[in-house]
Amino acid sequence: MSPAGLYIHHSSKEELLYRISLRGHQVALEVISVAAATSADPAQRLTAMMRAFVRHHARHHTTARVLNYELGSLSSEHHREVVEIRRGIERLMLETVEAGVASGQFHTSNPRLTSVALLSLTVDVARWFRSGLPWTPEEIADHFCELALRMAGA
Amino acid sequence: MSPAGLYIHHSSKEELLYRISLRGHQVALEVISVAAATSADPAQRLTAMMRAFVRHHARHHTTARVLNYELGSLSSEHHREVVEIRRGIERLMLETVEAGVASGQFHTSNPRLTSVALLSLTVDVARWFRSGLPWTPEEIADHFCELALRMAGA
Repeated sequence: MSPAGLYIHHSSKEELLYRISLRGHQVALEVISVAAATSADPAQRLTAMMRAFVRHHARHHTTARVLNYELGSLSSEHHREVVEIRRGIERLMLETVEAGVASGQFHTSNPRLTSVALLSLTVDVARWFRSGLPWTPEEIADHFCELALRMAGA
Repeated sequence: MSPAGLYIHHSSKEELLYRISLRGHQVALEVISVAAATSADPAQRLTAMMRAFVRHHARHHTTARVLNYELGSLSSEHHREVVEIRRGIERLMLETVEAGVASGQFHTSNPRLTSVALLSLTVDVARWFRSGLPWTPEEIADHFCELALRMAGA
């Protein structure tokens, strides 16, 4: 579809950005939720979530950049809606870290800040990933799963 | 200075972005270089670099966002110049991780990807840091130093 064609269907640039943001965040929440549901064991669950989210951000790095860096251009109403989905993703990570601490599998003095760091590591893949790197998205995901378990004190 | 005043002194938006990027990257390189020079011990050196860079990205998060997300808007010549400074920062982190592996203090199967992850964690602070969070830049830096040593397998 041409840029002109897109504008016929969307009332403004903000509306278009909102549609892309809403759909992108819904997909991201689904990707990490599906991964989280694969195991009740906190370490396996964290590994599945990290693997899925790193691969997602590497493969869709162009879209992910728009989703993560253009939030400030949304109207306040649309911003609230998208931030609510992001909170769902953040809750899922925090619950996983806290479950691991409760079960004695994870050891961290600050579960909330550790879960912020874990998500940060996956989201920022979209910034630095590009074609031509010496690692595939799968190799990056493998290594980041190892780093995540260390960060959680597994 | 007003926006109009700025444009008198810079021939184009690209030129202005280049000046901001160049200066910002020079300062970032200096901040992490000064931290790296405080100790020859890899663990102490890594801690000093992480602490300095996390604090820098939290305190100057607005400028840091421009530096990290607007690289693609630079001319290819200016882009090359700025990327060269970024490579200096990346080399410093890689050398620190490799020195720790060589001394037996760090344990990682992929020093290069681990050093990418360590820098990623500091740079992405600029994206998620905002006022009103429950942690000061210093508290975030403290916790991230702990995470960094775990990631490096200290």
